[in-house]
Amino acid sequence: MIDKKNIYSLIIVGAGPAALTASIYASRYNVDHLIVGEAIGGLVFEAHKICNFPTEIEIKGAELVSKMQKHVEFLGNPIIADKIVVIDKENNQFKLTTQSNKKLFATTILLASGTKHRQLNLPNEKEFIGKGLSYCATCDAMFYKDKVVAVIGGSDSAHTASLYLAEIAKKVYQIYRKDKLRGETSWINQVENNDKIEVIYNTEIIEIEGNGKVETIRLNNPYKGKERINIDGLFVEIGTIPQKALIEELSLETNESGYIKVGANQKTNKEKVWAAGDITDGSNNFRQIITACSEGAIAIENIFKFLQNKKSPSLSV
Amino acid sequence: MIDKKNIYSLIIVGAGPAALTASIYASRYNVDHLIVGEAIGGLVFEAHKICNFPTEIEIKGAELVSKMQKHVEFLGNPIIADKIVVIDKENNQFKLTTQSNKKLFATTILLASGTKHRQLNLPNEKEFIGKGLSYCATCDAMFYKDKVVAVIGGSDSAHTASLYLAEIAKKVYQIYRKDKLRGETSWINQVENNDKIEVIYNTEIIEIEGNGKVETIRLNNPYKGKERINIDGLFVEIGTIPQKALIEELSLETNESGYIKVGANQKTNKEKVWAAGDITDGSNNFRQIITACSEGAIAIENIFKFLQNKKSPSLSV
Repeated sequence: MIDKKNIYSLIIVGAGPAALTASIYASRYNVDHLIVGEAIGGLVFEAHKICNFPTEIEIKGAELVSKMQKHVEFLGNPIIADKIVVIDKENNQFKLTTQSNKKLFATTILLASGTKHRQLNLPNEKEFIGKGLSYCATCDAMFYKDKVVAVIGGSDSAHTASLYLAEIAKKVYQIYRKDKLRGETSWINQVENNDKIEVIYNTEIIEIEGNGKVETIRLNNPYKGKERINIDGLFVEIGTIPQKALIEELSLETNESGYIKVGANQKTNKEKVWAAGDITDGSNNFRQIITACSEGAIAIENIFKFLQNKKSPSLSV
Repeated sequence: MIDKKNIYSLIIVGAGPAALTASIYASRYNVDHLIVGEAIGGLVFEAHKICNFPTEIEIKGAELVSKMQKHVEFLGNPIIADKIVVIDKENNQFKLTTQSNKKLFATTILLASGTKHRQLNLPNEKEFIGKGLSYCATCDAMFYKDKVVAVIGGSDSAHTASLYLAEIAKKVYQIYRKDKLRGETSWINQVENNDKIEVIYNTEIIEIEGNGKVETIRLNNPYKGKERINIDGLFVEIGTIPQKALIEELSLETNESGYIKVGANQKTNKEKVWAAGDITDGSNNFRQIITACSEGAIAIENIFKFLQNKKSPSLSV
């Protein structure tokens, strides 16, 4: 028997800006729904400084997330901190199983589980996580007061990591495999004009060395005659990759980079499954907070119409 | 001779959420640009209450606009309060002429001039504007304290107008041509449960009558046996139509409703012209504040890349 309280017209999977905005719109449209996500705010939570969310001149990611969370909760929807691990079909409904082994049922699904940090894929990378190697400057910068750190990457998240680390560490090497930084010119200018930051172009890291913690990195191109740099901390900011597990679970069609293909209405190729935010190929693959929010809103309007048209008795739960 | 100060890489036409977000992103990408619009905030400025912009549980349109304006201006870009009336080509650049007869030159254009209120198109409609007939409840509701008003329309803007008027007027008739209100369920429930609001379904207004000011409206279907209703004020909230003038000026391709066709990157069919916000067919035609902001951001990323690739000396103005 299905527990009635576990049946929803919509389950939103994820708790980043796309999911949170979707919940706000779903509440406004009175679509009974549940929002289930591992990490409230998703990767935005980690952002040290956000300057391009319209209305917020400068805000920490955690604060922006908190404002969205309050908005969601004000409308009556607590965010369930759990992870969906299995999705099956049962009685023409989706059956979602969480990590804590809750069973949830939904007529429709909005997948907004975002992306995760891309790793360097060096053989011993995993050994150094938490031992000098970090994927989150906002979380870990404070451990490197007056020390020497390296940031790997050349886009906005690498720039903001370098700039934040430069406020704390003694020296920041920013190492990028190409000959020109990319992303917002504003960040690039700040990086290039910061006395504490030294950008090393056309260079990749090929090995992390150290006895129980990061001590040295080896480069594919010698820098100032040396192929090794001594550092206390290594921050990897080389972009993100989509959270694959549920994409595979639902057999969703993706583009060549693994992002879910969506239409203008945020629908996936799979019936009754929509997707929004960084996990999709929408918004011209720009992947900003504001584009994620927009995708969440668009998805809900379409899901609302779908549920209205369906007018099945089971929907009036 | 071209005055150097009047040449920009980009001119953003409009000053609503799409244009303001575009300016924020353009500033962050260091794209030299000018933002020119008649009305800061566009139609959002008139909104009495907005509850679905993520982070803002409840905010007046004017206040939301003011926050975006401050963000734009903080980044160094004053908004030029003027209207673009003519766009020509000159020396491989766009030449834009404003109502105040300023000449401006731009490599690229982002058209974000939005929509305007749809009118009833009744023969004597224009005579009554400002004499009991209004297209903006937020602007004019205060004139109807303890009076009787009618709102025409059945979507969110009509609902919010009725609800705001119900706080001030004695009685609100909301007249809609269909048998069921549409838009956010949350607004619909509030309208239907408000003692001061009486919704008249399946009915259209066919004449406005009065001696120098609105006194009576005539309906196509008798309501409670009467084909006329006495009112003091009439608020028309039957949607919006795109601002056509510059669409025609630039010969942009539109859909059957007159909205500019854009690609995923917000490009129009015309070289070096992008469009964003309510004036486009983007975002699955949802036309929300959050979708307009997103379109503005997406457009700028694409314009930035275009200008980078172009690398013409004239761009380094």
